[in-house]
Amino acid sequence: MSAALPLPAAAPAAFSLADYEQAARQRLDAATWARVFGAAADEHTAQANRADWAALRLLPRVLRAGAGGHTRVHLLGREWPTPLLAAPMAGLGALHPGGDLALARACAAQGAGLVVSERCGVDIETLAQAVRAEPGRGPLLVQITWHPDRGWMRQWLARIAAAGFDAVVLSVDAPVQGVRDAERRVGPAPIPPCPNLQDRPPLRPDPAAGLCGGWGALAPSWDALAQCLADSPLPLWLKGVLHPDDARQAAALGAAGVIVSNHGGRVLDTAVSTAWALPRVVDALGDALPVAVDGGLRRGTDVLKALALGARAVLIGRPLAAALAVGGALAAAHALRLLRDELEAALLLTGTPHPAAACRDLIAVDGAPLP
Amino acid sequence: MSAALPLPAAAPAAFSLADYEQAARQRLDAATWARVFGAAADEHTAQANRADWAALRLLPRVLRAGAGGHTRVHLLGREWPTPLLAAPMAGLGALHPGGDLALARACAAQGAGLVVSERCGVDIETLAQAVRAEPGRGPLLVQITWHPDRGWMRQWLARIAAAGFDAVVLSVDAPVQGVRDAERRVGPAPIPPCPNLQDRPPLRPDPAAGLCGGWGALAPSWDALAQCLADSPLPLWLKGVLHPDDARQAAALGAAGVIVSNHGGRVLDTAVSTAWALPRVVDALGDALPVAVDGGLRRGTDVLKALALGARAVLIGRPLAAALAVGGALAAAHALRLLRDELEAALLLTGTPHPAAACRDLIAVDGAPLP
Amino acid sequence: MSAALPLPAAAPAAFSLADYEQAARQRLDAATWARVFGAAADEHTAQANRADWAALRLLPRVLRAGAGGHTRVHLLGREWPTPLLAAPMAGLGALHPGGDLALARACAAQGAGLVVSERCGVDIETLAQAVRAEPGRGPLLVQITWHPDRGWMRQWLARIAAAGFDAVVLSVDAPVQGVRDAERRVGPAPIPPCPNLQDRPPLRPDPAAGLCGGWGALAPSWDALAQCLADSPLPLWLKGVLHPDDARQAAALGAAGVIVSNHGGRVLDTAVSTAWALPRVVDALGDALPVAVDGGLRRGTDVLKALALGARAVLIGRPLAAALAVGGALAAAHALRLLRDELEAALLLTGTPHPAAACRDLIAVDGAPLP
Amino acid sequence: MSAALPLPAAAPAAFSLADYEQAARQRLDAATWARVFGAAADEHTAQANRADWAALRLLPRVLRAGAGGHTRVHLLGREWPTPLLAAPMAGLGALHPGGDLALARACAAQGAGLVVSERCGVDIETLAQAVRAEPGRGPLLVQITWHPDRGWMRQWLARIAAAGFDAVVLSVDAPVQGVRDAERRVGPAPIPPCPNLQDRPPLRPDPAAGLCGGWGALAPSWDALAQCLADSPLPLWLKGVLHPDDARQAAALGAAGVIVSNHGGRVLDTAVSTAWALPRVVDALGDALPVAVDGGLRRGTDVLKALALGARAVLIGRPLAAALAVGGALAAAHALRLLRDELEAALLLTGTPHPAAACRDLIAVDGAPLP
Repeated sequence: MSAALPLPAAAPAAFSLADYEQAARQRLDAATWARVFGAAADEHTAQANRADWAALRLLPRVLRAGAGGHTRVHLLGREWPTPLLAAPMAGLGALHPGGDLALARACAAQGAGLVVSERCGVDIETLAQAVRAEPGRGPLLVQITWHPDRGWMRQWLARIAAAGFDAVVLSVDAPVQGVRDAERRVGPAPIPPCPNLQDRPPLRPDPAAGLCGGWGALAPSWDALAQCLADSPLPLWLKGVLHPDDARQAAALGAAGVIVSNHGGRVLDTAVSTAWALPRVVDALGDALPVAVDGGLRRGTDVLKALALGARAVLIGRPLAAALAVGGALAAAHALRLLRDELEAALLLTGTPHPAAACRDLIAVDGAPLP
Repeated sequence: MSAALPLPAAAPAAFSLADYEQAARQRLDAATWARVFGAAADEHTAQANRADWAALRLLPRVLRAGAGGHTRVHLLGREWPTPLLAAPMAGLGALHPGGDLALARACAAQGAGLVVSERCGVDIETLAQAVRAEPGRGPLLVQITWHPDRGWMRQWLARIAAAGFDAVVLSVDAPVQGVRDAERRVGPAPIPPCPNLQDRPPLRPDPAAGLCGGWGALAPSWDALAQCLADSPLPLWLKGVLHPDDARQAAALGAAGVIVSNHGGRVLDTAVSTAWALPRVVDALGDALPVAVDGGLRRGTDVLKALALGARAVLIGRPLAAALAVGGALAAAHALRLLRDELEAALLLTGTPHPAAACRDLIAVDGAPLP
Repeated sequence: MSAALPLPAAAPAAFSLADYEQAARQRLDAATWARVFGAAADEHTAQANRADWAALRLLPRVLRAGAGGHTRVHLLGREWPTPLLAAPMAGLGALHPGGDLALARACAAQGAGLVVSERCGVDIETLAQAVRAEPGRGPLLVQITWHPDRGWMRQWLARIAAAGFDAVVLSVDAPVQGVRDAERRVGPAPIPPCPNLQDRPPLRPDPAAGLCGGWGALAPSWDALAQCLADSPLPLWLKGVLHPDDARQAAALGAAGVIVSNHGGRVLDTAVSTAWALPRVVDALGDALPVAVDGGLRRGTDVLKALALGARAVLIGRPLAAALAVGGALAAAHALRLLRDELEAALLLTGTPHPAAACRDLIAVDGAPLP
Repeated sequence: MSAALPLPAAAPAAFSLADYEQAARQRLDAATWARVFGAAADEHTAQANRADWAALRLLPRVLRAGAGGHTRVHLLGREWPTPLLAAPMAGLGALHPGGDLALARACAAQGAGLVVSERCGVDIETLAQAVRAEPGRGPLLVQITWHPDRGWMRQWLARIAAAGFDAVVLSVDAPVQGVRDAERRVGPAPIPPCPNLQDRPPLRPDPAAGLCGGWGALAPSWDALAQCLADSPLPLWLKGVLHPDDARQAAALGAAGVIVSNHGGRVLDTAVSTAWALPRVVDALGDALPVAVDGGLRRGTDVLKALALGARAVLIGRPLAAALAVGGALAAAHALRLLRDELEAALLLTGTPHPAAACRDLIAVDGAPLP
């Protein structure tokens, strides 16, 4: 079904995103693998993210297809080719030389959006320039974290706006790094330098306050969010929301959107999966705010399920990192193409003409075989 | 318990349908195995089909047996020896020379019906002729797909009626092929030529409309079904229905029956299992239409459960393909005999005198060990 | 905890019933293993029998122990040392020379009752004589199947009463043998001759009536039960009941008790487990009839759970066959002693002074971790 | 995240409590391993203890961190550095020379409390003296069992009070040893001598009363608890409570607290897990009594979940025994530090400023992915 995109000669045949993850495991050193593909503690949440999407059962409709089917979505005041975006990932340069730009080009070529990490290996202006002019590109955002120095934050938000991004994403789910046993076991992986934050003042938690006291004092609060919203020229999304009440609060304060995420299971192990949280956040928000989601989506049917549960867009992380590691931009584009083809097949096979038509009736609510 | 049907000398001993699937795996090349026995994507639905039948728990009655027990069923205005039918499968010639006729003869010999695939390797007239005169045969149907050329469809429906089939089955669950990773991994399997559709105009989806736009424009709609119902001299069943509302709509338009099916898990992975969908479709239809089911039935107890949940007949696919591959007509007949014997034992052991007496009280609704 | 019963020199150390089953597997030929330890079809029910007892969670009480704790139970108008009985098993002579008498002696020595199979390898008079005089023995019953020749049945029931049994047990769950793939795969095991039924007229099902028609005509009905109840000088229990309505009907006709059983999963695969059926049958009967249960009980905690769910006694089958195969009477007695010791520990550790004090509050109804 | 505590040279790298258990298995002989790390029968409860904590899903809040976060808790009228306590364990000397004192020092160094076993290898006065003066230590308790000689019990309780303990813990869940197949299989492990109970009169159960009658007569009752409460100069907690009604009864009689415990799955297999029992006991007690819990807690997130379900403190057993076996006091302190760091991270990542702020809303009640 997928077009025969030429892969680099040494690349293995890949027919699904899982194939890329398996191939990347063969190629990467243990430390880099653990940094990118490992998760927190016993990795229950990372596994539940994948398993819970797969476990949702689709209840397809027949005889509803027709001319005019498409994958386009509305977001940030515009229409985009697909609901797919690349998730923010730091250190892509360790997977492929110039990995950030390679991923950006792959996304633009496949109509997928891109959320650039503030810790990417290229200055954000260069990256924005490479993408903005591409016809058929998806939305372009940059993901940031909070810093207590409000002046510096204001500058940083202004710089992002000036670079031509469509919106900014504030991550709020990792005030401290998770318990990364996998990484600690194999030792630190070299992380490529990041040119964007060199002037940011360092954070120095009070060692006498203990771990939660010290880092807690430096963590963002709802007031911090209010400041960012006031200081950002661009619409600002909140990333890392799982509790419906937090989503409501974000809406009340003026956020432009919410990304349901548990950081790919990388910070708080045994947190709820994003498939569990998404419909609850969507119900809490109603039409107040658009919602996106990431974490464990690996198939076109997973994307369709997220749309059916109310997501406007989905973010794809590790599988694109894996494709990058396997074959650079071309492989990343191929991975996105595979996913897009799978999504188109899923739309057609469930009688869903386009993403906005996906509704919750597509999901079989009760797993029990008997009424 | 099963009669000692002689198997071909080289055939392995088989005591259940699973034995045939295992033996076929040893004999078939990887590409043919993947084409026939593979399923879509991660094969969740193909596995759930089997697991959900097995997971249903029977609550047998005692001291209810008696003289006169039998396996006969009413369907299409007649009584037939058993509720078993062979499911439509293309390319049986790749499993056994003359596979379509071999399977047809096996079915007739065991009182099982047959749903011939339009893509079978023999013209349907020859096939109908070989079966119709057999005493004790089951119902004879042909499975078709929709084509936008109404004139050609009308001819095709007329030709089927003229050949002497009992009814026609329109598949509606595969407007596009599924995501068949397993097949793509091993490469294409040669499919034997099909003599029935040589005059059918080719389908040419608009390449500019994308996968779902292009194939969607060529897919059947409810209007298409209405046309077929108007144009078919024979009763027409709909195959591939999972949603109760679609079943209701089929009844409203005049379909003669509904086959609950997810195409053996071959098109939309993570679709609900047929054991899940069957009772809901039956409840939606009440007495309006007879319902058949396929997907994952491997044991006589599975067949009994389908009957108890309201199915009038069940279709068996891959296990018969496996038996064909192992030992031709004789093995296929043996497989049907095994299943029929198991069904007879299940009827007797649950105090169910005949298929129509199977009711939902036979199924233990709540898996919890305590009231 | 268990007394140091001397085992035969060659016997392996066994600390639980499971140890005996494992040891027996090493010693028995494949055909005998399959005949005794195999089950029907895919053995779902045989596995569920064990798993469902194990899965029930106990909610023990503290500070309730005290002097006077014991394992005695009332049954058939008398008090017996324990609620344990050996289940009826044919062909024990293939496991150990003189296996039936060996098992009988082991039961008597450990205060366990015995349900002799009518197909045992010794005449029932000899067996009864060997047990009846033993001080501290448990109840002594014989298990029979129905035969359409009422005159012969009347003689057989009279002979059982004359031999001095305490009651008779009519099996009603196997009007036809189950689908025993495991046995068919390895071929028939030699079954030792049975001296008890040599004068019983053979059953000759009508070959033209099919499996369920032919055997169904020879199967017992509720009328047959009424005849047996009228003809039996001894109290008659019904064995093989799973449906609450069948239990009610047995009570209405005058049966003396009901044994909840699925024949150890040997006849109808995917039938409900006995842990699932027991409380439902008990609730249906109220105080009308005593209930016993078999199938999958392997631990003292399993026995306690059965008592808590309302069973008056439990039957143990395969584990005693295994012990017999491993070390004859001594090993069988040791296995019963292990189970009895485990039961005593379970009583003490849950604050249950004796079997009749076990109530349903001991079972944690809801497996969910949160209220 | 965890401080770089120096481990003994030969100690393996350990990044979680599970690492210590794995390393200990390599170092200990089979008998000692079975004695300390084995559990009752088939170890269902020991496994459920761990699995049920892990299976609870956290629903974290964002943007709630702030200055002043800490791990302090109130207990026994004082504030302590952490909610962690070492569980009572006998025979620690077999794991490390002077194991009891080593564990005591590790706890004091990490702000963890200690529940000394009455069967420890050092006299309780020495142990209390070593801990009481440590700044930043946690609560210090001694765990006892009941003895029918009230005079001796009164002396023993007075001696504990005189030694300077903060409270005493009466174990009530093991009136008889559990069915320890694992231990019986490998044979007895040498247990180091215990200096504390040398003057305690031996228990001699009546051999004619059977296991449950004999040991039952020597087991504690609610009257025994009332005596202990009357005779103890120190507050007395009850350990081994699972049933809400038993917790209520303990409160009514004047106990100072309740420890929800199933003895680590070592006595009654298939008893409910402590994660299952805790919220039910907490709900039964309301504010009447503080509740602690042990059994299967291995991660900081497990500790947070216990706090969220209403526990005031948690006891950690086998993991500390494992660390002791691997590297003595330093390793035990490191293990406690790992757990404390994980707890701090979990507090921060869920927006919980301190243990008393953890509430049930942190736990996702329904595992189903859809509302």
